[in-house]
Amino acid sequence: MSKVAVLGYGVVGSGTVELFYKNKEKIVKKMGRELDIKYILDIRDFPDSPYKEKFTKSIDSIVDDPEVTIVAEVMGGVGDAYNYTKKCLEKGKSVVTSNKELVAKKGAELLKIASEHGCNFLFEASTGGAIPIIRPLHQCLAGNDITAIAGILNGTTNFILTKMINEQMSFSDALTMAQKLGYAEKDPTADIEGHDACRKICILSSLAFGKHVYPEWVHCEGITKLTLEDSCYAENWGGAIKLIGSVKRTEDGKILPMVRPAFVCGGNQLSHISDVFNGIMVYGDAVDEVMFYGRGAGKLPTASAIVADIVDAAKMNGTSISQTWEDSDDNSFIADYKEDVVPMYVRVKGSDKGKISAAFGDVEYLTRDGQPDDELAFIVTAMPEKDFDSKLPAIGGEVLGNIRVLELD
Amino acid sequence: MSKVAVLGYGVVGSGTVELFYKNKEKIVKKMGRELDIKYILDIRDFPDSPYKEKFTKSIDSIVDDPEVTIVAEVMGGVGDAYNYTKKCLEKGKSVVTSNKELVAKKGAELLKIASEHGCNFLFEASTGGAIPIIRPLHQCLAGNDITAIAGILNGTTNFILTKMINEQMSFSDALTMAQKLGYAEKDPTADIEGHDACRKICILSSLAFGKHVYPEWVHCEGITKLTLEDSCYAENWGGAIKLIGSVKRTEDGKILPMVRPAFVCGGNQLSHISDVFNGIMVYGDAVDEVMFYGRGAGKLPTASAIVADIVDAAKMNGTSISQTWEDSDDNSFIADYKEDVVPMYVRVKGSDKGKISAAFGDVEYLTRDGQPDDELAFIVTAMPEKDFDSKLPAIGGEVLGNIRVLELD
Repeated sequence: MSKVAVLGYGVVGSGTVELFYKNKEKIVKKMGRELDIKYILDIRDFPDSPYKEKFTKSIDSIVDDPEVTIVAEVMGGVGDAYNYTKKCLEKGKSVVTSNKELVAKKGAELLKIASEHGCNFLFEASTGGAIPIIRPLHQCLAGNDITAIAGILNGTTNFILTKMINEQMSFSDALTMAQKLGYAEKDPTADIEGHDACRKICILSSLAFGKHVYPEWVHCEGITKLTLEDSCYAENWGGAIKLIGSVKRTEDGKILPMVRPAFVCGGNQLSHISDVFNGIMVYGDAVDEVMFYGRGAGKLPTASAIVADIVDAAKMNGTSISQTWEDSDDNSFIADYKEDVVPMYVRVKGSDKGKISAAFGDVEYLTRDGQPDDELAFIVTAMPEKDFDSKLPAIGGEVLGNIRVLELD
Repeated sequence: MSKVAVLGYGVVGSGTVELFYKNKEKIVKKMGRELDIKYILDIRDFPDSPYKEKFTKSIDSIVDDPEVTIVAEVMGGVGDAYNYTKKCLEKGKSVVTSNKELVAKKGAELLKIASEHGCNFLFEASTGGAIPIIRPLHQCLAGNDITAIAGILNGTTNFILTKMINEQMSFSDALTMAQKLGYAEKDPTADIEGHDACRKICILSSLAFGKHVYPEWVHCEGITKLTLEDSCYAENWGGAIKLIGSVKRTEDGKILPMVRPAFVCGGNQLSHISDVFNGIMVYGDAVDEVMFYGRGAGKLPTASAIVADIVDAAKMNGTSISQTWEDSDDNSFIADYKEDVVPMYVRVKGSDKGKISAAFGDVEYLTRDGQPDDELAFIVTAMPEKDFDSKLPAIGGEVLGNIRVLELD
């Protein structure tokens, strides 16, 4: 019998408890052994909860209870969540978490502590919500040399971009709608500036390439500068603009993690992912490409990943599975994104085709309904971004936007 | 140190050996323990192979070698493959396989033997090729009550259907092209009649619902009756025709596995999967829907799944992981597909709208370029298929085709 403690009874915590008891019989049957939740830690009181006898306000009662072998950390942040996780791992209790900030900032350290104490630190729920990605990446693709990963890792921004394409809404109207529907926070910065996607690509990069990638090392651009016009050009081009978190191995053996809006062509499955759904494409030498798709957030989808990790931790009881990566002292293994060879979309007012071909040679012109006479939009052939930057001023006029085109394989 | 034997040096076998040695250093580092291939079983000689000293023609030398703890069965069929697998499992050696026929026909028995002998029978490569699906379904979605699965499980037929849509090729021209490219066998029956997809949906059904589903219990229709005209109507409707293997739980607690061409709407990710790619959508009470996408066949993609299973078997050394299902004596838990409530596409020559609405009430009419005056195509609202069957004759004319519309959630 494994006993579980759930730290935090917010959206994910209550979802975890709800899902566990809903499907307990099936879960226990599949596992072939007993499993139950013994404690729920929360500073608040829940006198009407059917689980009221499980609530505690004392982390020590959990840490000191030898019956508890698995702890689900679903509090968020890197304050108490970090301290409690560390305490539990040091006692040999496996910790499963949905806390992407915790994994992105403290993953290497916590994995090391887990390994030293014969327990597991699992975080399937931290990236892609309901989507199985952490374990497949680590386990099912173990035979592959992973060359790149690219994903739509944030549902809120994908919802906004979908509304801009399908319903011709402006960015700010779409954001307001996302807030009304509860998809975006009152302060939407973490989503729309790409910080949330950045934490997730850090986790995936660390896992795929074996060294901890810290968020502050990753070039990160959000979607706030995107316009409806850019979106229309992308659609006429046969693709869509998506906020992409990606990482790839570069020719010099470094890796390039990055978050930015990108033109994604219609042949790439990621271009078809709409609303709050996430999708993560993984490129490897044997698999070519595989994609994982599903709900990237939400109460029950996230709880699904937490419960799966709990079941796994229970099965692995006493065995530390080697899902781990090294800590990194510096960012010398991170490539400079300005050196990356990338095609670029440009929208410009008051330039002309002569200047454009003088600067960039042959480009692919795009069109849109209602395109003003003095506006041009085009895609420049792949070149190092720093070269693009140095050539751009020569086209003159007012550059209204430039967006990278996704190319990974 | 775990030693591996590979049974069969055909396409998948040679791919497995090639991939293993290509990425051996990374694999061993990730695993944290040594792993090597000791034997390759094949009746043929390979005097020029870099692995020539590993070849053997004797299964007994493998079965009797206590150093060999993992066997990769990549021979195919249920003759020797079945006998050898059984022998190895009975000796406590874990077996990993890409052999869908073996799993679909003998899975329950082999899983039982594995469990009785403290070893594992793993078959990630049997379904979806490179796509991680078996383990995610079993492990990552462990907290879910799975309600349905629907997938494009055969790359050859998806290639043919893609050519029919994108290049307006007829079925037989597209088949010839698939054969020329090596995607389809000289005798393409297993692919185009849906038998291959059927074996795969049997495996997924057994895993998701816990009871062995035998192929002969599954209603199975291939794509040989599809016409270019049907394909055009589907496209104008905003979707695509796909060969879908699916299973769902029915209201009476039975399950309904089935293989047939279906109209798939544009909102379903499966409609966007083209060429030889596969995609498998899983519906669960917590995840809502998740999809797994990638190459469903091919030398290295399949080898990727085999190598992942080898690594897993090595890690689990001595532990039987409970991926299992019960055998079934009869098919009383399989629902009758004629009772299933399903919308239906119909193409008819020489009928009229009066007769159609008299038979089916309001229907949704579809159009296509070059539609003859005496041809009508329409979608009938969902009703039990047996009711549809009994009403159909009343529309008169010549029914040129009728195809189910995919509806699972």
